[in-house]
Amino acid sequence: MKLEDARALDAGDPLGRFRDAFVLPEDIIYLDGNSLGALPRATIAAQRDAVERQWGTDLITSWNANDWIGAPERIGAKIAQLIGAKPQEVIVTDSVSVNLFKLIVAASRYQEDRAQILTEPGNFPTDLYTAGGAADMLPEQVVHTEQAGDIADALGPDTALLMLTHVHYKTGARHEVATLTEAAHKAGALTLWDLSHSVGAIPVDLNGCDADLAVGCGYKYLNGGPGAPAFLFVREDLQEQLVSPLSGWMGHAAPFEFRDDYAPAPGIRRFLCGTPPVLSLLALETGVDLFLETDIEALAAKSAALFELFAERIDERCYGQGLTLITPTEPEHRGSHISYTHPSGWPIMQALIERGVIGDFRAPDILRFGLTSLYTSYADIWRATEILGEILDSGLWREPRFAEAKTVT
Amino acid sequence: MKLEDARALDAGDPLGRFRDAFVLPEDIIYLDGNSLGALPRATIAAQRDAVERQWGTDLITSWNANDWIGAPERIGAKIAQLIGAKPQEVIVTDSVSVNLFKLIVAASRYQEDRAQILTEPGNFPTDLYTAGGAADMLPEQVVHTEQAGDIADALGPDTALLMLTHVHYKTGARHEVATLTEAAHKAGALTLWDLSHSVGAIPVDLNGCDADLAVGCGYKYLNGGPGAPAFLFVREDLQEQLVSPLSGWMGHAAPFEFRDDYAPAPGIRRFLCGTPPVLSLLALETGVDLFLETDIEALAAKSAALFELFAERIDERCYGQGLTLITPTEPEHRGSHISYTHPSGWPIMQALIERGVIGDFRAPDILRFGLTSLYTSYADIWRATEILGEILDSGLWREPRFAEAKTVT
Repeated sequence: MKLEDARALDAGDPLGRFRDAFVLPEDIIYLDGNSLGALPRATIAAQRDAVERQWGTDLITSWNANDWIGAPERIGAKIAQLIGAKPQEVIVTDSVSVNLFKLIVAASRYQEDRAQILTEPGNFPTDLYTAGGAADMLPEQVVHTEQAGDIADALGPDTALLMLTHVHYKTGARHEVATLTEAAHKAGALTLWDLSHSVGAIPVDLNGCDADLAVGCGYKYLNGGPGAPAFLFVREDLQEQLVSPLSGWMGHAAPFEFRDDYAPAPGIRRFLCGTPPVLSLLALETGVDLFLETDIEALAAKSAALFELFAERIDERCYGQGLTLITPTEPEHRGSHISYTHPSGWPIMQALIERGVIGDFRAPDILRFGLTSLYTSYADIWRATEILGEILDSGLWREPRFAEAKTVT
Repeated sequence: MKLEDARALDAGDPLGRFRDAFVLPEDIIYLDGNSLGALPRATIAAQRDAVERQWGTDLITSWNANDWIGAPERIGAKIAQLIGAKPQEVIVTDSVSVNLFKLIVAASRYQEDRAQILTEPGNFPTDLYTAGGAADMLPEQVVHTEQAGDIADALGPDTALLMLTHVHYKTGARHEVATLTEAAHKAGALTLWDLSHSVGAIPVDLNGCDADLAVGCGYKYLNGGPGAPAFLFVREDLQEQLVSPLSGWMGHAAPFEFRDDYAPAPGIRRFLCGTPPVLSLLALETGVDLFLETDIEALAAKSAALFELFAERIDERCYGQGLTLITPTEPEHRGSHISYTHPSGWPIMQALIERGVIGDFRAPDILRFGLTSLYTSYADIWRATEILGEILDSGLWREPRFAEAKTVT
């Protein structure tokens, strides 16, 4: 494919109008929206309003006057639309890590005769670490890992909870929520899905899969801003059965009665803990609102087309240069990023960044590129792969400065 | 005192120059900075920069380029100056509730032969709820409450942790950190101080008192914005002894190596958990920075003078109207708010708010007014008490609309 063909695809892209809804610096091609989503233009005005009017002028009255107090549920209900959940099943609160802890502990206690939290090695570290930390606090609980292909067979009478990340942060490989949830339920286990790398990128149907629990990230595809609060999902009929171990006052049935004794709120609010970071929370809302103007099938279709173009271009332009695709090629088996290994992945990514192509590196040797259908264009992909080809052809990445660069993503 | 005398005090106020550093709507007198601090003018530009340049333009590179990754420690080190701690002993992270959980669990485990978390009834609810939630997860732990005056005698060989709020959120009464910490240490207990109602308002000297652990709030006197992240303090020589039960990836020794096994970071970073809400975090920093331009003794001296004026004015202007002062009158025994009970406290506060005097109500009958030395003027106090007098004289508060108002603070 030539650049003009990519431009033609952009011209016919039904999602093309969304690109102008984002701030995208002209001199870069941003392929890291799976790590930090770009800034929606609407967020600029919304954050000024949140800071300058809501906080500055309305001050404490904003908890009611601007419904800060309702924001965790209100934004949760919007996210629910993106993941096939009921509005009252999702709430925005804390971080993914903290929410994992709440749900792992609550589910493990509910499943009192079952001692095992089942997950896979290489799951996102915070999921593994948090499960370990939670298990250490539970009388008999242990974390057991099995390779992805062996998970279904590993489910058994001792499995309290199957905890998996829907789309793998490195490879982009996608688990089948429906089949694994069904298998877990047959074994009497609950399921906890980390949707961090899928929400806002690919279809998720939690209710359709009868899923029990989920968490997800606000700052990746949802474009909620750096470190945006996370969300959690609890199936409606499970909500009254589960109690958060993090019994902060915002999860109380009557927080403003200031009683000494804890009584969890009815429904999803019981999974709140402390006072939420309102500025970050409201930034997330503006990001989520953009998704309500489109549909996830259109986003997924474009993601698949961007992926295909990327892979085709690497095959053509970077043939024989040592790049190995590690992301599944069938769209239904992957998320919305594309990953390659290369023995010199680190310096190559640093050279790409210097040339204005922002992807990221994941140890030990992975080059990762996010495909964000709202604002990534086909021309972006064409140019990014062209620049990657130039870097590999020229050996630019061998220059010493690329060995030393630091990155945190 | 007459209004002109109050104005004269303002004219001579060495902290008077700070008032213009805040956005304060002209038509209100804001006496609720102990619940939500006012907006520093500098935060407007700082938040625009955080959103529009750091996120919008620098995108993912901001983790290094704008040192987002260092913000929790950097801001913690600044707060350390306000509470008599070493820079490496304080970190900004999560909410007060989540931080209480981390430290209660870590301390209880460290004190493995001791089963009791000692606190007082009527402590701020989230402290009590979180202690209860933590105790439920620990094999033998129980929460035991004693009235403030009986706390020292209740310390014993079974006390793992003495957990108190330095300044009481309702009465404003202050515990003596030094004597209670010494008594706790004699009994072999650790101490955990909640500084939410003292940091930025009155002197705190954690190192001077040999205090062990503390948490505190970013959105009250520190003016960090609604729901600003909280901070926690761990005495330096205890840091390597304690492990957070919330083992999220940001507390890992090498988070960007993405290892499967958890290894806590050395030092205070081990008490981080998930990715922090950067926008809210940076707003807090601007609030804290203002405190580095003054000193806490000056703030406390003005707070004492504001309190004295308030109490004197109520005695004069509202005599016989049913207001009872419940805050200790000696400055060293209180924080920086003044509280009165009145059988009709709720409608009176609603009438005050309608007249532009923003204080808050705490169940069952408390009218609470925050005295924030950076931006509260003596004339504010004079006018607020005058309006309160008018409301009581006229019986305005008896109008039905004040019975129904809703408030959340």
